[in-house]
Amino acid sequence: MSDRLSTTFAALADPTRRAILGRLARGQASVTELADPFDMSLPAVSKHLKVLERSGLIARARAAQWRPCRLRARPLKEAVDWLEHYRRFWELSFDRLEDYLQQLQRKEKHHEQSEREK
Amino acid sequence: MSDRLSTTFAALADPTRRAILGRLARGQASVTELADPFDMSLPAVSKHLKVLERSGLIARARAAQWRPCRLRARPLKEAVDWLEHYRRFWELSFDRLEDYLQQLQRKEKHHEQSEREK
Repeated sequence: MSDRLSTTFAALADPTRRAILGRLARGQASVTELADPFDMSLPAVSKHLKVLERSGLIARARAAQWRPCRLRARPLKEAVDWLEHYRRFWELSFDRLEDYLQQLQRKEKHHEQSEREK
Repeated sequence: MSDRLSTTFAALADPTRRAILGRLARGQASVTELADPFDMSLPAVSKHLKVLERSGLIARARAAQWRPCRLRARPLKEAVDWLEHYRRFWELSFDRLEDYLQQLQRKEKHHEQSEREK
């Protein structure tokens, strides 16, 4: 679990943490601002932020007193790079689905023709 | 943690499970075949396979006695679709890095020129 990619995927495996990233995609925000829409306690949000910070998905300003959080996208890119190796599989399976649908449509047409010829 | 995307990311947050998917990308395999390269016990591999199966990342044949596992790519596509929303952020940060490097190079050149003119 200590490798970078595992840490990234583990951090993303939570809807609240993904929603926090979604919020930060619209601009940097303080912990209070992040806690607000989720109706969560500050400690609960802080816990999620620590996970995100450890995984390198967010960074927190050191200087400003309100220490705003901002999104860091590099781990997301690494996750996409890993997933992209499997692209041919989902494209293949959608192709297969399309083939299957065309087959069904051909059968349907054939069936309609036979009905008309009766 | 019960939503589909969280289950997918949690399943991917383990190097052995990602390696199993990598093996299945080369073709279907039995549990014994999957256990072999990892030097793991069959129960340990079975546990990982259960996680992958629950997340819909693999499917196991019901009919054949050796019940081969095969890759199912749809959850991977859903994960990429989610990550793609953040593409502009990593592209932006690489652009910024490039800008910064060009700036450094210009400064370097400028510095060299001043040195020569002395």
